[in-house]
Amino acid sequence: MHTLVLLRHGQSAWNLENRFTGWTDVDLSPEGEQEARDAARLLTDEGLTFDVCHTSVLTRAIRTLHIVQHEMGLSWLPVHKHWRLNERHYGGLQGLDKAETAARFGEDQVFEWRRSYDMPPPPLPADDPRNPAGDARYAGLAPDVLPASESLKETVARVLPYWHDVIAPQVLAGQRVLVAAHGNSLRALVMHLDGMAPEAVTKLNIPTGLPLVYTLDHTLRPPGHRYLGDPAVAEAKAKAVAAQGTARK
Amino acid sequence: MHTLVLLRHGQSAWNLENRFTGWTDVDLSPEGEQEARDAARLLTDEGLTFDVCHTSVLTRAIRTLHIVQHEMGLSWLPVHKHWRLNERHYGGLQGLDKAETAARFGEDQVFEWRRSYDMPPPPLPADDPRNPAGDARYAGLAPDVLPASESLKETVARVLPYWHDVIAPQVLAGQRVLVAAHGNSLRALVMHLDGMAPEAVTKLNIPTGLPLVYTLDHTLRPPGHRYLGDPAVAEAKAKAVAAQGTARK
Repeated sequence: MHTLVLLRHGQSAWNLENRFTGWTDVDLSPEGEQEARDAARLLTDEGLTFDVCHTSVLTRAIRTLHIVQHEMGLSWLPVHKHWRLNERHYGGLQGLDKAETAARFGEDQVFEWRRSYDMPPPPLPADDPRNPAGDARYAGLAPDVLPASESLKETVARVLPYWHDVIAPQVLAGQRVLVAAHGNSLRALVMHLDGMAPEAVTKLNIPTGLPLVYTLDHTLRPPGHRYLGDPAVAEAKAKAVAAQGTARK
Repeated sequence: MHTLVLLRHGQSAWNLENRFTGWTDVDLSPEGEQEARDAARLLTDEGLTFDVCHTSVLTRAIRTLHIVQHEMGLSWLPVHKHWRLNERHYGGLQGLDKAETAARFGEDQVFEWRRSYDMPPPPLPADDPRNPAGDARYAGLAPDVLPASESLKETVARVLPYWHDVIAPQVLAGQRVLVAAHGNSLRALVMHLDGMAPEAVTKLNIPTGLPLVYTLDHTLRPPGHRYLGDPAVAEAKAKAVAAQGTARK
């Protein structure tokens, strides 16, 4: 049996301000840092350890991973950072708060973008300073692979190649893998592992800062998965995420 | 012209206690964390940035790098951690303070171990809990490559393959490289780059927390190098390191 742990980063500065974040590189808030320390304690109490770690190229996920590693005495583990594990790209909504978005596009439209599986928000114009093409961290990528906006379906499509080509082979080779990432890139992995339908995954709310432990057989189908810690905390956190809606994206 | 920056980690918990550290995985002290933040500011003020980072598998160097990256908004840069960039292995001296070492081995012998280029301290016995063979971070290495003690000469010999095979090709390919490491692994790189004789390198004291900037031509010979910041600070830090003697190893 193989073990895989998924961890969603905790509160960021923009979660606090209730803004669409997406690929905007905001840092963790102090509460988000504490969520990472708490996650490390849950992992340690469970007796888990790792051989290799993966994260996105966004600071809030990377720092979550670094804090967990430091607390567990595992700073020396190899860490692979990849844009395919980034949060869903929220296009022209990035930086807007809930009120601004509703005023500009209408409540119904915003609800549709958030809840639909395959409808992308309006794309960022090519010359928008928020466009990833101008960011050094994406300079090594062909411009046509970089999104200007993503539906959840498109996020799933760009996350899964990293799962198939990088993470899954490591899991099958017996490595204990920790992935620290974002609400929607983790939804993509959970959807694939659990064989979820699109309607189900749009309703899935992964709580922040609670390690999600998968136990996988040699076919990588999950006989089971569970959140570490108090189940009531997991449920409350999932509800909080669902209620915040745009805030946690 | 190519740019390469070397950075020695700042104060650790055992520097404070004046103990031989070597491969013992002690963390930075709060002052050591501040030295890393100060280094980030010097690099930012100089307008420097990087494409790739290297460090050891020891927490005090890794955290120095992480702090610098975070302060510079460069947490997304790829980081390669490798045992060949570790501090000199201090064998049976690891964990002893200056007084204990002198009492056990005699002042003259200790002076000789610290100042000689090719004399290793007494090796750790194979069953010593301090032996790296029992440490998960070295589990993937053949046992006969792991030192039980090192002279500075042996440290140089195990650092240079990483320079030749990993760092130098990146520099030659135009990548801007940051290396966060230790007093003796950085001595090895400086000795090689500057073509220093053994007698000279045993007298070289690299100050902690001050970025050492090399400008290299296509032969990787250095037309020049300099410490960032106030030269008086660099000199004072180098003197402090020399005076502490065993404390900074």
